[in-house]
This record gives sequence, structure tokens and C-alpha cells, in this order.
Amino acid sequence: MYRLNPLLRKLKRGPQVILPKDLGVILAFTGVGKKSVVVDAGAGSGFLALSLANVCKKVITYERREEFAELVKKNISRSGLKNIKVKIADVFEGIVERDVDLVSLDLAESDRVVCHAVQALRAGGFVSAYLPHAEQVKKFVDTVKATNEFEEPFVVECIMREILVREEGFRPETKGLLHTAYLAFARKKENTSAGVPEPGLKGSQS
Amino acid sequence: MYRLNPLLRKLKRGPQVILPKDLGVILAFTGVGKKSVVVDAGAGSGFLALSLANVCKKVITYERREEFAELVKKNISRSGLKNIKVKIADVFEGIVERDVDLVSLDLAESDRVVCHAVQALRAGGFVSAYLPHAEQVKKFVDTVKATNEFEEPFVVECIMREILVREEGFRPETKGLLHTAYLAFARKKENTSAGVPEPGLKGSQS
Amino acid sequence: MYRLNPLLRKLKRGPQVILPKDLGVILAFTGVGKKSVVVDAGAGSGFLALSLANVCKKVITYERREEFAELVKKNISRSGLKNIKVKIADVFEGIVERDVDLVSLDLAESDRVVCHAVQALRAGGFVSAYLPHAEQVKKFVDTVKATNEFEEPFVVECIMREILVREEGFRPETKGLLHTAYLAFARKKENTSAGVPEPGLKGSQS
Amino acid sequence: MYRLNPLLRKLKRGPQVILPKDLGVILAFTGVGKKSVVVDAGAGSGFLALSLANVCKKVITYERREEFAELVKKNISRSGLKNIKVKIADVFEGIVERDVDLVSLDLAESDRVVCHAVQALRAGGFVSAYLPHAEQVKKFVDTVKATNEFEEPFVVECIMREILVREEGFRPETKGLLHTAYLAFARKKENTSAGVPEPGLKGSQS
Repeated sequence: MYRLNPLLRKLKRGPQVILPKDLGVILAFTGVGKKSVVVDAGAGSGFLALSLANVCKKVITYERREEFAELVKKNISRSGLKNIKVKIADVFEGIVERDVDLVSLDLAESDRVVCHAVQALRAGGFVSAYLPHAEQVKKFVDTVKATNEFEEPFVVECIMREILVREEGFRPETKGLLHTAYLAFARKKENTSAGVPEPGLKGSQS
Repeated sequence: MYRLNPLLRKLKRGPQVILPKDLGVILAFTGVGKKSVVVDAGAGSGFLALSLANVCKKVITYERREEFAELVKKNISRSGLKNIKVKIADVFEGIVERDVDLVSLDLAESDRVVCHAVQALRAGGFVSAYLPHAEQVKKFVDTVKATNEFEEPFVVECIMREILVREEGFRPETKGLLHTAYLAFARKKENTSAGVPEPGLKGSQS
Repeated sequence: MYRLNPLLRKLKRGPQVILPKDLGVILAFTGVGKKSVVVDAGAGSGFLALSLANVCKKVITYERREEFAELVKKNISRSGLKNIKVKIADVFEGIVERDVDLVSLDLAESDRVVCHAVQALRAGGFVSAYLPHAEQVKKFVDTVKATNEFEEPFVVECIMREILVREEGFRPETKGLLHTAYLAFARKKENTSAGVPEPGLKGSQS
Repeated sequence: MYRLNPLLRKLKRGPQVILPKDLGVILAFTGVGKKSVVVDAGAGSGFLALSLANVCKKVITYERREEFAELVKKNISRSGLKNIKVKIADVFEGIVERDVDLVSLDLAESDRVVCHAVQALRAGGFVSAYLPHAEQVKKFVDTVKATNEFEEPFVVECIMREILVREEGFRPETKGLLHTAYLAFARKKENTSAGVPEPGLKGSQS
């Protein structure tokens, strides 16, 4: 039903993984590609981080929970991808990377990372957030606007249906996924004087 | 409304372009990445070909109409991407490339290219088709199945809504796109003895 | 999940029943009300017929399969509604009623009833069809157009999502129904000279 | 595009009217019918009130703005329906009717009418609310729950697409409505001891 692509089929799944329909939205709406450097946070099983690594130059994924970091490392090894690093660190305390093209967030409180994303992003880079609930979206959007460092943020949702093409006829599948998450995006202004004070940084790269 | 990413915003648009929501589906469901070689056909304005080139190692795009080929070349130049070639050739007459990871089709009669895609694809590679009408989907799926060279094909549609987060509240936008196209996918079997006879090939690479 | 209203909750369900979301579309797009007389065909469990009877002056429902007719009668008795009759008859052979406001069809081959609907409907009355597959829709629409007795037909689909409003936040439900059927409608022309020859009629009212 | 039924086509439209897709949901999810008495509030152009009157025994619609009340009266006259009364009164101050089957709300602050709906509804009757924004939905649901007089409320949204069946093929329409409103419903408990104190009532029936 989820139509995982060959890369994702190699991976071990944790309790919740981001699905191809939403991965696609992040790739297409940010336009990241072979030259992009991405910071990902809330690694989970690593589905999003590895999908980004499959496309981008380099991915650094923050995960503070040891057991998830282990799962991601196992999945990196299964994927064969070499351009991804797991950082066992709390992204709420800061992002050490600079000049990155995308900060991709899959965390309940993604809004709390916006101030760090401002520091990490290059001018014109994107922050994206995967947010199941409306309240999270509102908080994220309000926080982004308050920084005054981003262009107007936007939010989309993707309702995907599989279409059955069978002997008896053409029709959408009867049952399936109705909602995963809202996807919020904001692009850092092209010419911005970083005026947001950032808390101290911690985190050890693995 | 279409939320074109920075790459796409640089391009000149022809009458119909594939939108980010559908680009994302193609990227995510095929899993193409930095190592992938793609043949694209029905270049149009080059939006799909350039989005693939942004992510993949190499893209060859077939376009038989001179004026569209010119538009694509102009757009390649605007994009700054170097890993894409326009071939002024009729893809219905054949694909000369071999061992490609994806054959991406945006043509009214994509079904007529399936026999060539079989020849061009590596084992495990994908053919994708962007098809506005149900009848096209049925023809494409039937043709794919008839080759016996692909795993079971699948078809999806992506209904995307932009979500407004404003002073007055959170809600989806009132009006917008309800349909662009169905997206059909088929993966070439891992171990397949190519048994489909192919018509003669033509086409000059530019 | 289906949110059956109090009337429907009283009924015994057969294998497939039309759901409130689709009942609502039929009621709202045809505008039937207290003064309307309806012929329904393909009674099934009687959900549609009884929902129409709840709103309309009189409903006659055709069902040729004895066991379903029994189920409908049982459900009529459970509902307490008095303005509905079950006719054990084959609607493909004809409709005896005249001047009806709506002919409501839930049959695989609804197109084969269009010629009878023309005879049964008053000028300005509607025929509606509940059709799961695209091919059925096409056949129905083409048949309607060929009669030249109806205004331009139209077809809709209703994608309904339940919204969860909980402690943890506001979001659409994760899984549920993605498709039931397409709903096709055609209104008989206001001034029409019934020119469609109709096969002989049969059927005994129960 | 809106496919107004023959009743609605007779009416004069104000700036915003409830559309058939949403009317249908209210009819089908509450199950109101020929025996039902309905109180409607926020008459607007009267589309909802008149659609309910077309189906129900009696409708009383509250509208405090004189100019809208005039529009509704004009529309009642156009419709030919006799079982509907306009009350120029502020529903936030109370509902005088008792034992009604449905209180149907189309007001920005529908939550403020919940306490009056409790008084007006018979046991087993419904309150429904048409609410464009998520925040309104949350407030309404929370208010309903706080009364402890209703079964668990539920909320749905209906995404409707028109399907084009043409020479060139079958597909959903390209552009159209993506959102009108969320529809919230709550059913008054069957055995309830009305324990909610109600403010004083005002309002003159016209």
C-alpha cells in the first residue's frame, strides 16, 4: 500500500516512518539536489534522512535518542549510502553546521528549532517541517514569521490515492491513508542580516 | 499557488508544465538519486527533465518538436545544469540508451513507448508515465502487463491542498487545483530475459 | 467510522450499503423533498430507498432478488416508514411508474435503465446513478446523452475525511475510506417529446 | 460548477452560500426528514434553511441582520415553500423553540449557541455547525463536550470533485473548490436531565 521505493524497502522500519508521498513533497518543494547539504532532525528510522542522502551531496541527521540513532546507523549500512552522518545530539540546543541548503524537521516541537535553522541555513535555503496536527503548524508558522528572517512560509497537505486498474474497471482504492502530516516550508530571505540570537550549541558528531 | 521551487522559478514556462506535487511523486516513488541515469520523453518546457537533472547523474530528454527543444535548451541554460542533453528525436521510434534507471514519460500515448522502455531500462529500473485521463492509464497499464517484463504496475494520484494559516484561522485554501494527472509506475523485473522485439531506432543527440 | 444516522442505525446491513456521504450527495444535488415521488432500483439492503423515503412523499424500490427484497422489507419494518413499497421486479425490463421526480439507480449496469427512466420521469426530474468504476460512468453518461432527453449530465465524487479534535490536536483521521463510487446525475429536459421507444414492462408490486 | 439543484437555482444569492455538497452532509448525517422540526441560525441567503424546509416539516430560521432577513423572505417567496419562518432575532440570546430535531448553525461563533441548542433539542436531536476554520471547530467541539449533554461529537469535511466525461477521456476537473467548511455534529443524549442554565430569551417571530 505504501509503495516504498527500492531504497526504502531495504530499511528496517521503526514505529512511524515518513512515506514516499511526503518525501516527494519535501524534495520537490525545496528543490534540493546533488549539490545540496542538508541537516535533518528527528531521524526516527532514517527514512527521510536516507531519502535526502540518496539525492543530496551530504546529510547530517540529529537524533538524541540512542536507540533510534542505532536504528538509523543500521539503516545507513543497509542502504549503502556514504554521504550521511548521524549526530547523537539534541537539535533543540543548536545546529553547528552552517551554509546548509535545507533544515528538514520531523519533530513534535519543530517550532523550537526555527531559531537554530536561521543560523544554519544559507540565504535562500529552506526549513521544512512534518507536522501531524494543525496546532503544531500554527506554532511553527508563527515562529517562522516572528524571526523576520524568512520569506512568507507556506503549508501543504498531500492526499494520495492509489488507483486500481483491473478487469472489473478503473477506480481509486476503497480504503487507505487519509492523513499523515501537514508539510510546512519557509525559505530564508536572500539578503538577511542574521539578527536572531542563538542559544549555545552542543552535540557530538558520530 | 504552484509554489515552484527556486530551480523552477528560473525557467520559462510553456503552455503546460508538470508541477512540484507530481515531480515529487516521481522522485519519491522511483527513488532515483545521484547515481541514476534517466531518459525523459515529451520534454515540453523541460520542467520534469530539469528537476530530474537536479537530482540525478545524467538526464537525456527526447523531444521531437523543434520549438519545444529550443525552449528546453533555453531553460537548461537558465538552470545552469550541465548533466542534461536534449535529443531532437521521436521516442516512439526507439530509445538508444541502455541500462537506464528511469524512463520518465509525459506523452499522450506513453503506452507506445513501453516496448522501448523495456530495452532501455536496467533490471530493477522504472518506467513512469504522467497521464491526465483514465483511458490513457488503462492503456498504459495493459501494455506494461502484456510485456511480462515488469513487476505489477501501480498508479497513484496526488490531491494537494495549500493550507492557510492566518489571523482569522487555519483552513485549506478555498480554490485551487483538483487534478493534474494520474501517475503510473512499473518496475522492470530484476531477472528478465528481454524478449520484446523492438522497432528500428533513430534520433540524433544534440 | 461511517457515522450512520439514527434511521440507518436501526437497519440490518447487507454486504454493501450506500453511506451517508453519498446519500447526502443524491439528496442535495437532485433537491428531492417532501413532495417528491422516487423510483429506486437495486434496493440492496434498502439504505438508499429508506433514506429517500425519510425525506420524500413516496418511494417505490425495485429489487429482483427475493432474498434482498426480504431484507428490505425487514428494514422497512424496522424503520417504521410507511411510504415505501418494494417491487420484486426486474428494472431492466421497465418501470411502470410515471411522472416521478427521481429515478435513483444503484446497479452495475445502470446505463441499461436509462431508457426506462426517460419514460418514468416527469420533465425536470432526475436520474441518478451510483457507479464504482470509471467505465460504468462513461457508459452511463454516453447512454444518457444518446437519448437526447436530458440536460447535460454531470458526475461528482465525494472524498470525505473525519476530523479528529483531541487533546493532542486537530487533524484528519489517519485511515479510512478513499472511494466508494462516482455519482452521476442527469435532469430530464423541461420540454421534451418522449421519443425513445421503450421495451415492454413487467413487474408485480408487493 | 456548483451544480445548484432546481430549488436553489430559483434563489437570489448573497455573498456566501452553503453549497449542495455541504447541504447533503447535513441532511444525511443528521437524518432529518418529513417529520423533523429544525431551528436554523445564521440564515444568510437562506440556502440552508430552504434546503431543510424542502425536506422537513417545519423550519424556523434566526437572522438578526434586517437586510439578510429581507433576502431570506424574498427567497422563501421565490421557493414557494410555506413551512419556513424567519425570526429576526439574535440566536446568541436564546432559542425559544423546544423539542426540535435539529439546530443547524452557520455562524462564526456557533459555540456560543450550544447552550441554547441544549434547551431547544429533543433527546436524540442534533446540533450541526458549518465552520470554515479549525479553531472554530475546536471551540465548538470543546463547548459541546463541556455541556455533558451530547454524545461524542464528530467532525467531517467533504472534498468534492466534478468528473469530466468527454471525447478526450475521463478525468476530474482541473480546478475548483478545495475547501468550504468543516461540518461538526453532536447528538443530544437520549436520556438527559437538562442541567445547563440558559440566559434569558428574546426575539420576535415574523
